[in-house]
Amino acid sequence: MEALNGKLFTPEEATVLQEIILHRRDVRGNRFVDRPLEPIAIDQIITAGLHAPSVGFSQPWEFVIITDKDTRQAVRDSFDEANAAAAGVFAARGQEYCRLKLEGILESAVNIAVFYKPNKNGPVLGQTSMPEVGVYSVVCAVQNMWLMARALNIGLGWVSILDPEKVKGIVGAAADSKLVAYLCVGYTDGFYTRPELELLEWERRKDRDSVIRKI
Amino acid sequence: MEALNGKLFTPEEATVLQEIILHRRDVRGNRFVDRPLEPIAIDQIITAGLHAPSVGFSQPWEFVIITDKDTRQAVRDSFDEANAAAAGVFAARGQEYCRLKLEGILESAVNIAVFYKPNKNGPVLGQTSMPEVGVYSVVCAVQNMWLMARALNIGLGWVSILDPEKVKGIVGAAADSKLVAYLCVGYTDGFYTRPELELLEWERRKDRDSVIRKI
Repeated sequence: MEALNGKLFTPEEATVLQEIILHRRDVRGNRFVDRPLEPIAIDQIITAGLHAPSVGFSQPWEFVIITDKDTRQAVRDSFDEANAAAAGVFAARGQEYCRLKLEGILESAVNIAVFYKPNKNGPVLGQTSMPEVGVYSVVCAVQNMWLMARALNIGLGWVSILDPEKVKGIVGAAADSKLVAYLCVGYTDGFYTRPELELLEWERRKDRDSVIRKI
Repeated sequence: MEALNGKLFTPEEATVLQEIILHRRDVRGNRFVDRPLEPIAIDQIITAGLHAPSVGFSQPWEFVIITDKDTRQAVRDSFDEANAAAAGVFAARGQEYCRLKLEGILESAVNIAVFYKPNKNGPVLGQTSMPEVGVYSVVCAVQNMWLMARALNIGLGWVSILDPEKVKGIVGAAADSKLVAYLCVGYTDGFYTRPELELLEWERRKDRDSVIRKI
């Protein structure tokens, strides 16, 4: 077994991470600017995803980087359909829902669709009691990507108002793949100091004590 | 709307994040040392979770911090049962599975059970087409916690070989809560330079090109 000499971090480095976590935002189409993403920036974001934890080191992910306009337009059409249905769900809040910009599919520099691909070579260590942890590994990859994008001052927005089966068809994913996240990534004209839905008073931050228990 | 003056990070700060991501490890019982965790360290880890992205800013999480020995012993018993069943699944690899240390429930300073709590006040913005994104928000919280622990040189291991319903009963979770992650957290005698399952040759790192497509 290799030596246990993994890097130790300083308190200042831990503070950098804390700042990145506190300043991460969900970025939508009204904030993206018309500036291409350097290939090295996309590589750094994907690398962060590839070094996420994965159950049994199964790495059960596929990243589809989408620049093609027609593909994005088709995904955007799917969003419009799903969002029209969602607007009805929030009818009690009047026009408030309809005024929100909830995606940046066409405005961002690239889209990245992130899929879970089940292992074809038998069972996965750690996935025998809670099979859903395979998908959770892919979510961890998305969160790593989100933080890395923020550290590079690149906006990232997660679009979930989509029919996942339609998106699978549009981007040609395998039948047994599962869409986990559809991401819009690109430079922005700035980052909000607080979550946008908090600033807009759509929802309030919960009291810390209400979500922590001790045994 | 508040000004768009969220902090911008330097390339050096982005490199700090990349290093933390690359050096994060799943830590098990053979690495934890008998040293208490300072309350402020636990607070910093939980704070990282509380600032994860959540769909519609719903913050659908509960963190149960467990130090009580009897509670942990009961969870450990549940692990032993689930792990004995899992060992049978991997019988083709002989005794290799049984030699692996896959949890640190009793050896770590604290356990943190992380639950998804569905919203009781109606539909959640962004969760109408893909209801599973509520649970994904909680996974993002776990990944933030994992990175923050690593930046503080604190080990964290995710135990998934558990019966989630039994754990809910043991820690007194609400009937409609869902166990997302059971975490073992504490100081360690070191961090491996590469993922443990890669060092042990249980599984190999996938070729980068095999998991990326471009459209």
